[in-house]
Amino acid sequence: MSITIAIDAMGGDRAPDMVVAGVALAVKKFPHTHFRLFGKQELLIPLLKQHNLSASNVTIQHADQVITGDMRPSAALRNARTSSMRLAVESIARGEASAVVSAGNTGAYMALSKIILKTLNGIDRPAIAKPVPTLRGQSLMLDLGANIECSPENLAQFALMGEVLARYVLKKATPSVGLLNVGAEDLKGNATIQTTSRFLQQSNWLENFYGFIEGNDILTGKVDVVVTDGFTGNVALKTAEGAFKLFQARLKDSFQSSFLHKVGYIFARPALDQFRKGMDPRRFNGAPFLGLNGISVKSHGGTDALGFYYALEVAVDMVINDVNSHIRKGLSQWQEPAAKAEKKREGTTATPQFTLTQRIAQPQHGIA
Amino acid sequence: MSITIAIDAMGGDRAPDMVVAGVALAVKKFPHTHFRLFGKQELLIPLLKQHNLSASNVTIQHADQVITGDMRPSAALRNARTSSMRLAVESIARGEASAVVSAGNTGAYMALSKIILKTLNGIDRPAIAKPVPTLRGQSLMLDLGANIECSPENLAQFALMGEVLARYVLKKATPSVGLLNVGAEDLKGNATIQTTSRFLQQSNWLENFYGFIEGNDILTGKVDVVVTDGFTGNVALKTAEGAFKLFQARLKDSFQSSFLHKVGYIFARPALDQFRKGMDPRRFNGAPFLGLNGISVKSHGGTDALGFYYALEVAVDMVINDVNSHIRKGLSQWQEPAAKAEKKREGTTATPQFTLTQRIAQPQHGIA
Repeated sequence: MSITIAIDAMGGDRAPDMVVAGVALAVKKFPHTHFRLFGKQELLIPLLKQHNLSASNVTIQHADQVITGDMRPSAALRNARTSSMRLAVESIARGEASAVVSAGNTGAYMALSKIILKTLNGIDRPAIAKPVPTLRGQSLMLDLGANIECSPENLAQFALMGEVLARYVLKKATPSVGLLNVGAEDLKGNATIQTTSRFLQQSNWLENFYGFIEGNDILTGKVDVVVTDGFTGNVALKTAEGAFKLFQARLKDSFQSSFLHKVGYIFARPALDQFRKGMDPRRFNGAPFLGLNGISVKSHGGTDALGFYYALEVAVDMVINDVNSHIRKGLSQWQEPAAKAEKKREGTTATPQFTLTQRIAQPQHGIA
Repeated sequence: MSITIAIDAMGGDRAPDMVVAGVALAVKKFPHTHFRLFGKQELLIPLLKQHNLSASNVTIQHADQVITGDMRPSAALRNARTSSMRLAVESIARGEASAVVSAGNTGAYMALSKIILKTLNGIDRPAIAKPVPTLRGQSLMLDLGANIECSPENLAQFALMGEVLARYVLKKATPSVGLLNVGAEDLKGNATIQTTSRFLQQSNWLENFYGFIEGNDILTGKVDVVVTDGFTGNVALKTAEGAFKLFQARLKDSFQSSFLHKVGYIFARPALDQFRKGMDPRRFNGAPFLGLNGISVKSHGGTDALGFYYALEVAVDMVINDVNSHIRKGLSQWQEPAAKAEKKREGTTATPQFTLTQRIAQPQHGIA
């Protein structure tokens, strides 16, 4: 199978240099994949030469506009019709590429991906997903900021999409799925997540629904997939990033606080280097927008060549493992019995296909 | 000034042993403070003897019931009228103590504190606050789980109460206050926090309102006070706890992964011990319920004597610094000009005192 990955070569703090350097790493790992770079050819041609990239692996499509980091999504949609980001996404819709990767403006990239690729049939809103390191390896978390407010339907769809990604890309056998809440008991949280939980418990929507998990369970790896709304997910992920920064800074301070500690550092360095390597955020770069007719992966804007390589790897993995087919299949497996059940009830009044009726419950305290 | 602290001696995983041991530490630090223990006297009397605690510092009031960790708040309110927790809280309402501390069932403790002490005039709902370690020392975060859903009024009140606590207990000169969001730009987030932010920007409610902050800013210490709803705050705090667990486990793994690394550990140990001490969660134990007619402090249920001592210290600090008077003063300072402004508009139709009108805005993407 020949795969083409479309790349917004102009997105990201250190683009296009880090993008081309990342592609050079990917070419070595995936020699049969074709990478199509969208961006200013006067900048890209010398970079391709510098990295000895041949036209059999990497080609350029000129794009004269660049969507900057501070551009509003609405402006990026209206103007910037020949931007590198837009042309890269459009190449998927035209069937010229199997996936698109950008390290550019997230809001604009999500808006363009949604409008050009459209959502999958049965998915109301796409979600941003990301693997996170845990005590037991890695887990998947979504949504991380695409949807500030979510309905039970949205959350249930995120759960299904996350389960598919964990199964086929993270290679977990029967991924457990948890719903992020302020406590594990049934009565905790707001009406939206209580309704979602009841639905996921009572339906055959997921093979292995765990129930509610709490913030501390995310990075300890209690479940393979953490489902939450985009507000909570975004805050939680960034809080963990801040915690890591604090941890590293305090560790560094301790090793610099006295002569004895500085000597200790010399001996501890191999272990500390191994620790840092294992927690390297670049290894977890690459956040797919799940739920679209096409694979669209967001790289962190501040990453370097190695980080961008990992985002490319996520895109290639998603194409090879045909993630969207599995999401479609999962949706239809659930919809078929529902449709059959409806047919059985012939003569009765029509029932909505999705039976997530919100029952308002009293919010409960969070800290137990 | 003579201070009496009421203590639920039966709350917490290792109560009453760790409670009495924590009180013994507090007696040394605060010899002029009186500690009144509520709980089973047959258990407490031998413990007091064991720690050589005299009646001049520590007394016992017998309580035959205990509110367990799995008891529902509603059940704890209806039954358990002679529980150690209830009697301890009631002793404040009767003016027999200046503050109450419990490591027991949080939901029950909050419910009892709210019903017995009542909220301060001008505060609609109490919030749970807690100091967190940061790159720059420590910051204060609230709400951490008392209010799953919050209005702009609630959040503005939390901001004021947090500012007072940071000023008088954490001793910050003009505490900066940030509103937790998914991005720093004005258009990010939901209508509730946008309205709160506009109000705090336009009013003189706070001396030093920073605006929106993101998850990663919490532990880097961008602001002195982090304001958020109880759902987000609870998830963020627990995510940070999980992050620290992950980092510590990975660090340990790195030092155990080879003979060379194990040797490195021997030399690194003094620095690592210093690091662990600085991040010790017991030092940050003690979460006040802010906004009540009385000082009520929650200790973590799983803490030990040292952790419980720190919760007692928070209570004593809050009494000595008369936190509630300052909250009342802050509320009246804001209400007086508002009342004067209303008087000026005599003849015009009455305007609501709190001008936080929600204007619904489109939610924006979280990841920038």
